[in-house]
Formats: sequence, structure tokens, C-alpha cells
Amino acid sequence: MDGYLKEFTKHYCQTAAGCNAQKELPTATLVRQIIETATEHANILGIGYNELIRENNAWVLSRLAIELNRMPRMHEDYSLTTWIDSFNRHFSRRNFVLESSSGEILGYISTVWVAINIKSRRPADLSSIADMEKMTFQRECRVTSKGRIKPDMRHDIAKSYLFATTDIDFNRHVTTARYVELIENQFDLDFYDRNEITHFEISFHHESVWGERVDIYTQMNEATGESYSMIHSEKNGAVCTSITTFRPRVKIA
Amino acid sequence: MDGYLKEFTKHYCQTAAGCNAQKELPTATLVRQIIETATEHANILGIGYNELIRENNAWVLSRLAIELNRMPRMHEDYSLTTWIDSFNRHFSRRNFVLESSSGEILGYISTVWVAINIKSRRPADLSSIADMEKMTFQRECRVTSKGRIKPDMRHDIAKSYLFATTDIDFNRHVTTARYVELIENQFDLDFYDRNEITHFEISFHHESVWGERVDIYTQMNEATGESYSMIHSEKNGAVCTSITTFRPRVKIA
Repeated sequence: MDGYLKEFTKHYCQTAAGCNAQKELPTATLVRQIIETATEHANILGIGYNELIRENNAWVLSRLAIELNRMPRMHEDYSLTTWIDSFNRHFSRRNFVLESSSGEILGYISTVWVAINIKSRRPADLSSIADMEKMTFQRECRVTSKGRIKPDMRHDIAKSYLFATTDIDFNRHVTTARYVELIENQFDLDFYDRNEITHFEISFHHESVWGERVDIYTQMNEATGESYSMIHSEKNGAVCTSITTFRPRVKIA
Repeated sequence: MDGYLKEFTKHYCQTAAGCNAQKELPTATLVRQIIETATEHANILGIGYNELIRENNAWVLSRLAIELNRMPRMHEDYSLTTWIDSFNRHFSRRNFVLESSSGEILGYISTVWVAINIKSRRPADLSSIADMEKMTFQRECRVTSKGRIKPDMRHDIAKSYLFATTDIDFNRHVTTARYVELIENQFDLDFYDRNEITHFEISFHHESVWGERVDIYTQMNEATGESYSMIHSEKNGAVCTSITTFRPRVKIA
């Protein structure tokens, strides 16, 4: 035993007020909770914000992939359990399982983080940050990630957005949750009444800032239910790229 | 003793990832947590969503006023404690105290709720819902509310917004948090670097839906630091009206 808490669980309750129009956990809220759970676990392991900032380093989310059996529903208790799966000199893979309070597996999440020096914006050397070898843990995480998603200008839906005050986080960049919302907003409300997300993944290419104007491009493959999205900044090119897979909802009488 | 839990407390931790650019709790997150705490307390008291919906009734937030000494800061533990202050046939006043883990009072919140019949959209009779007399509690709540804020078209800032999928809640109306964000976004990021909110209040006049276009009007009184905002729908007129009071931040070296 080396004393590290290798798995960390956080419990949530899906209140009515926190539900989306389909009476489920909103994707952007799940993403916020994934980041929150990761942040709290990193703090416990002694590799959190306070420790990293001493050397001007910080964790930046590079990729996120979610595989869903179903979303937590209104009034349902659920939990996120996270562990560090692996790491190399620059990247750390942190996995999650999303479970109902009765132990039903609702989904799996895989995230890739890079520690960067916030002054130089260059990757930090993880091996100098902590003995992460001793913090890793092996557990099943069934996510079929396509890896880094390439920028692609083809689209059949294009919208525009100007990043505002409440879109900005403590690093003074746009929050991950806001990117997820902009991608979700490419489709109308009734599309989500008819379809649910089974897979969502996003790769980050460039950090947007306050006042930056972006275009959101989406291309839907009706045959596969797979939708490709890119948030594109006129100034900086691809901000993030994303793939969402939908399946028709089963009608409940 | 009548067995009702008249005061309910919910604990929160302000993670780095959940902070705004000023490394504090975002106003919209506080509003979400106020509604979440109210919702959970109502569930405990047996006057929650599940009970009300049996008669096709639901709670709707009519007014909200926040008085702040300061916002919770990054990595700070804090709590929201709520109780029902008073009620009449149509309205229920629910108050809150926002406290740090050391017991420092960070702020007070006062909210006014109306129970409506979701089919007719008419107010429900609270006296038929529960014996709310036995649920009320008296405790200090220092909020100086201006009451219902009148619509006013005068403005020196005007922006436009089209409500999208992720702005919609389980009642299929725009979330309170999104209105609060739109009002906050009338000012630039650096304005919030220089100023902090000491008072915020909002009155709701009409519920917006998906695809509704609104204009957000703001008029700032530089002398008093008081800012008036209205979200206005071309189709339905005033959606909500709001007053925010700012004070210059004390510079920390």
C-alpha cells in the first residue's frame, strides 16, 4: 500500500430544476461534473491546482469521450467514479464510470489531460510533477474513442457566436461546458425530443478568449446518426472538433 | 414540535474549474444552487415537484433578490441555508443565508415563488396544497428588495439573443440561470475585474421558450453604480427586469 486514494467517487442527485427539456441530466452539466470530480481527486492526490501553480503549471483538458447507455433522469441519484488510467511524459489519461445509485452502469468517460506551463503555454514534464506511477489504477472503461478529431470545414449547419463574460473560466479561457452547449445547440429542441446521445467526444485545439467570434459548423450523417462539429475562430482556426452519435429515443407512452 | 425540517442547509465547495474569471462563484451558478437548495427542501417538506404535479401544479420563481458581502472564492467551502419565511394564498417567500465554512455571512437571498397550474398557467391556491403555516420559520434575512421591477425601454447598451436548446429547462422554458447570464453579459470581462456585485435582483414577467428572439437592454447609473436591465421579447414584451448594484473592487496586490 502506498497510501494514495486511487479511486474517487462523487455523488449527485438530479433535481427537477437541473434537468434539460427531456427531463435528463444536460450534457454540459455532466461535463462540468466530470471536471469537478477530476479536480477534487487531483487535489486529494496532491496534484491539484494549488500544487501545480507553484511551478506555474496547470492541467488543461485535451480530449474527452463519453459513452452512454442512458443519461441520469429527473430525481435520480447517481455517481461519478474516477481514476488515473495511465500517463506518459506529457499526457495523463483519467477515466470515469457513471453509475446509478442501484449500481446500473449509465456510461463511461475517458479524458486526456496535459499539464502546461501557464506562462510559456508549453507542456510541462509530468515526471517532474509527481510520482504518478503510484497513482494509476486499472479498471474497465468501455469508451470507443476516435482519438484526436481532425478539423474539417464541410458542413450543412453553420451558426455564429461571440464569447461573453459568463463563458470565461478562472484561466480566462472559454469553459469546456460552453463549447459543449454551442455544439448541442446546432440542433433544435425537438431533435433532442426524438433522439438521444449515445456517444460524444471532443478534442481541443486552441483556447478561445472573451470577445472572440466563432462559427460552429456541423455535418450530419443521417445513415449512421453520427454528427461532426467544429468550432472555428476566424482569428485562430479550429478551436475544437467533436463527434456526437445519436439514436432514436424509444417512445414512452 | 410538528416534525417539519424548517431549515435546510446544503454544502458546496468552490472548485477552481467552477470559478469565473475573477476566481469567484459565478452569479448564475449561485442562482442554480439557490433553486437546487429550494427544490430539495421543498421535496423534504412534501411540497416538491412530485407532490405538486399530481394536481398539475408546479412552483415558478417570480422574484429573486441577492445581497452580497462577497462571493465565495476559489477553493472555499460554503453553504446555503433556506427556510420558508411567509406565504399567502398565491405567493410563498423563501429566504436564504449564504455562509462560509467558518460562519462568515457572505450574503442573504430572498425569493418569491408562485404555484401555478401548468395546464391553465393560472395561479394555484397554496392553502389547498399544504399546511404551509406549520412550515414557516423566522430568521434574519438582510435583503433590501425593490419589489417588482417595472419594465423600462430606456437603455445605453442593447444586445440580441436567440434562445437555444441548452437554455431550456424541464418545464420547456428558459432557465433562470440563462437570464442571469444574459444580463451579466451586458458588461465586458474587464468591467467585472474592476467591479463586484453587491446587490442583484430580478423579476419575471413572461416565460420565454426555445427559438424566441430577445433584446437585452441595460442602463447604467454611473453615480450610484446601479444598473437596470430588461430582457424584452418582440413577441411577448418584457420577459424579466433586473437591478444590479456594483462597487469598485479593492485591488489586491
